[in-house]
Amino acid sequence: MNYYGDPVNKLIEQFSKLPGIGSKSAQRLAFYIINLEPEKVLEFTNTIIEAKDKIKYCQVCCNFSDKEICEICASSKRNNKLIMVVEDPRDMAAYEKTNNFNGVYHVLHGLISPINNIGPNDLKIKQLLERIKNDKPTEIILATNSTVEGEATAIYLKNLLSMFDIEITRIAYGIPIGADIQYADEITLAKALEGRRKF
Amino acid sequence: MNYYGDPVNKLIEQFSKLPGIGSKSAQRLAFYIINLEPEKVLEFTNTIIEAKDKIKYCQVCCNFSDKEICEICASSKRNNKLIMVVEDPRDMAAYEKTNNFNGVYHVLHGLISPINNIGPNDLKIKQLLERIKNDKPTEIILATNSTVEGEATAIYLKNLLSMFDIEITRIAYGIPIGADIQYADEITLAKALEGRRKF
Repeated sequence: MNYYGDPVNKLIEQFSKLPGIGSKSAQRLAFYIINLEPEKVLEFTNTIIEAKDKIKYCQVCCNFSDKEICEICASSKRNNKLIMVVEDPRDMAAYEKTNNFNGVYHVLHGLISPINNIGPNDLKIKQLLERIKNDKPTEIILATNSTVEGEATAIYLKNLLSMFDIEITRIAYGIPIGADIQYADEITLAKALEGRRKF
Repeated sequence: MNYYGDPVNKLIEQFSKLPGIGSKSAQRLAFYIINLEPEKVLEFTNTIIEAKDKIKYCQVCCNFSDKEICEICASSKRNNKLIMVVEDPRDMAAYEKTNNFNGVYHVLHGLISPINNIGPNDLKIKQLLERIKNDKPTEIILATNSTVEGEATAIYLKNLLSMFDIEITRIAYGIPIGADIQYADEITLAKALEGRRKF
């Protein structure tokens, strides 16, 4: 039985393709859109089309940007000999908010994940190699997450980049600041011990 | 600092206006859309525009439909003297799936909720009154949820419809089938006791 008519069903189907949206949420979103004023719906679709149209990857770091070269890569205040490799633009934003890093970034747009059929060629690794050849950085910081995929990608990159004469570093994992040691998980504790430094 | 460019920020803002989508989910959805193939993005926006364009309210029951009169209201097999009033098209669909109701529906598209600034005039109540005058039903089943807003709307409708010579009923609330009494909340238990019937 077709309860709502085909155009609604198609809309529900489209919403349920989005990541993290199940069938109930997709219904809720579809009904919300249909109950909106027509001009609000047009505003929504135009914003999507405009973003898709105007946003490209920065030609240097592969972050999203509406310019050929993003603000960070174009800035003369940043040290382009120090490149932090991140999975996602959100990781880049998180580091920027610390105001504690004056190097530049390289956004992979994913992690190596054989189970999801994502290999090195699906990431922005070719662009990273090009960049290293051109800009001759002195240090590459591998700042992928400490998940299985994040570790695998970091190890892959470490091996790949060993052909260049660059220092390859990995961000530190350990007890988060303010956290209680007795509640930390075993792997975090082991990492904190392994990464101990002279005091 | 503008990390991703204005078109991305606008897209994130649009997504975060959707119900149940917080700022982190909105970012995730925006990045997903930007990483999609252009034709997939067009398919998404066209489906939204088409649904908004083609879907209207059924002129009888106010459910979503791509026809003037929805399949249920147009069916000669349904008893249009028995009208079930529901909050939302999804409630209608839930009852349809039981295959246990051969009356027709009336969809309010919301509940009275002063805290959210939703009054009786924001719901499809005027259409219900028109319909009662035309179709002269014998019974109206109030099937709104047993929440504060659902109860308030049911009481409002009961008072309003008392001017007609129709039986007004309310669906039963009690222990769900298969549920364990010891885990039921007090209000459900009280409702189950209050609604007890001769065995």
